Amino acid sequence: MMGGDYAPLEAVKGIVRYVSDGGSPASLVLLGDADLLRPLLTEHGISPEAIAIVHAPEHIGMHEHPTKALKEKKASSIAVGFGMLAEGRLDAIISAGNTGAMLVGALFSIKALPGILRPTIGAYMPRENGRLGFLLDAGINADCKPEHLAQFAVLGTLFMKHVMGVEDPRVGLLNIGEEEGKGNILAQAAYPLLQQQPGIRFIGNLEGRDVLVDKADVMVCEGFTGNIVLKMAESIHDIVVRRNIHDAYFDTFNFESYGGVPVLGVAKPVIIGHGISGAQSFQNMIRLAEKMIEKDLLGKISEAIV
Amino acid sequence: MMGGDYAPLEAVKGIVRYVSDGGSPASLVLLGDADLLRPLLTEHGISPEAIAIVHAPEHIGMHEHPTKALKEKKASSIAVGFGMLAEGRLDAIISAGNTGAMLVGALFSIKALPGILRPTIGAYMPRENGRLGFLLDAGINADCKPEHLAQFAVLGTLFMKHVMGVEDPRVGLLNIGEEEGKGNILAQAAYPLLQQQPGIRFIGNLEGRDVLVDKADVMVCEGFTGNIVLKMAESIHDIVVRRNIHDAYFDTFNFESYGGVPVLGVAKPVIIGHGISGAQSFQNMIRLAEKMIEKDLLGKISEAIV
Repeated sequence: MMGGDYAPLEAVKGIVRYVSDGGSPASLVLLGDADLLRPLLTEHGISPEAIAIVHAPEHIGMHEHPTKALKEKKASSIAVGFGMLAEGRLDAIISAGNTGAMLVGALFSIKALPGILRPTIGAYMPRENGRLGFLLDAGINADCKPEHLAQFAVLGTLFMKHVMGVEDPRVGLLNIGEEEGKGNILAQAAYPLLQQQPGIRFIGNLEGRDVLVDKADVMVCEGFTGNIVLKMAESIHDIVVRRNIHDAYFDTFNFESYGGVPVLGVAKPVIIGHGISGAQSFQNMIRLAEKMIEKDLLGKISEAIV
Repeated sequence: MMGGDYAPLEAVKGIVRYVSDGGSPASLVLLGDADLLRPLLTEHGISPEAIAIVHAPEHIGMHEHPTKALKEKKASSIAVGFGMLAEGRLDAIISAGNTGAMLVGALFSIKALPGILRPTIGAYMPRENGRLGFLLDAGINADCKPEHLAQFAVLGTLFMKHVMGVEDPRVGLLNIGEEEGKGNILAQAAYPLLQQQPGIRFIGNLEGRDVLVDKADVMVCEGFTGNIVLKMAESIHDIVVRRNIHDAYFDTFNFESYGGVPVLGVAKPVIIGHGISGAQSFQNMIRLAEKMIEKDLLGKISEAIV
């Protein structure tokens, strides 16, 4: 509840939206400063008795060093949450707080699923036809081996298929040239692995100009390129807003509206939101966690990775 | 004269513009099909006697294999041109033709300047204030070592300073995080080299969101990331045009209008234009070659690289 630029207000509003949409199975556990949350919930028409609050009064700032902060602030919502997740007292964790701390928690408190070489995080890439592409890795694995990219393709495929509802997702390799054999050493080596990888539909190389068009549903690359592509796409939205351009497509570049992305490959659903997450984002993140559990995404990942 | 999507008409028009602007010292040598060029020149008010034409009737298509085409089509304008450049019968070469063939010519017919580890090619990145950033490598060096990036910084600095008229160009390292120590293995190793590199003004790391803002004049990265960034920026222009968005800044994303970029680090000025180059581009490319010679860019590069 304490993470993100508009915490805890937008998180509370997101919960109000989620609860009032009704028919949802999730029992929410709010982690944060209970003294702050209780009056806020009441104010927004939610009885503090109707919802579990775990008091976590410490706060990890957006720019704090992740490992250090997690170690020192044991009463922070992120530290408390990952503790509960590891003990099985939570089924999923969601936060718009310090991304680094969330990743450290995901990688070290709950660990990777057996067989996963590198847990990864993706980024949505909007297309003009309203569909979403999914680019991974988006920044946590700056240096990768070819087999990591092949595994990202499997993780991305399972996520897009089961959670995002994309039938038979197309997988592309982000590269600098269309033909097989193009690219840097990593991309050249990843290409045949992707061709041979069971459980994915590999369609070949993608170029930078294909990132924003509806060519592939899953786009794999190492996290260096992926992060630069993501940040550049985010900056396009900033420019469009600054220049007062109103366009239905560029409006969808508002990455905040997507809610959040899961850390794929770890043993529990962990959803990381953008720092600027608003009410809609929080609602979407809860739904995303719910869907990951409902569709048993982690079970499907475990089956696929042997 | 035979290269590019609108050859040779737009090249002829570009020459008309260049000549009619007057006061220019360059004596042009046109390489291409003389039977085709002569009537076209007359039609556009240029006496074919007033301008040198070297008959090069063969044509390398945009999708032909560069090395193979250059070997087999010895009477193509690119093959003839690089031969003349190597023999000192030309001082610079310009083409909007097959980029690969131009690169093969640049790297193997005329070779790198002594001390140059990897010749490179850059890309202009437009900013809202009208300035241009220069990103290099833009795609010919997919795998790089840290020392290559340091040398790209020197080449980019000299080009931006002497040819583009940018005073004391700022150099940034394209990376995934602002602080020193961030990034992949290459970027982490390149950072201290850039700090220690004489003759450049290193301002630190840049992120993907900084590519289109006026933070650094020279942005260095390996050619894999650089090419993806370039192609993505080009695709933004395509999207803007397709969506009928009229905006003075996004109009400058029309990369065709910049003319061309030099292959930096080779022993003669070689200017490569976009396939869709029009008259304005050709005029700009002639001016660019002229300026490189006038400012003795290659002499300055030779002095800097020891």
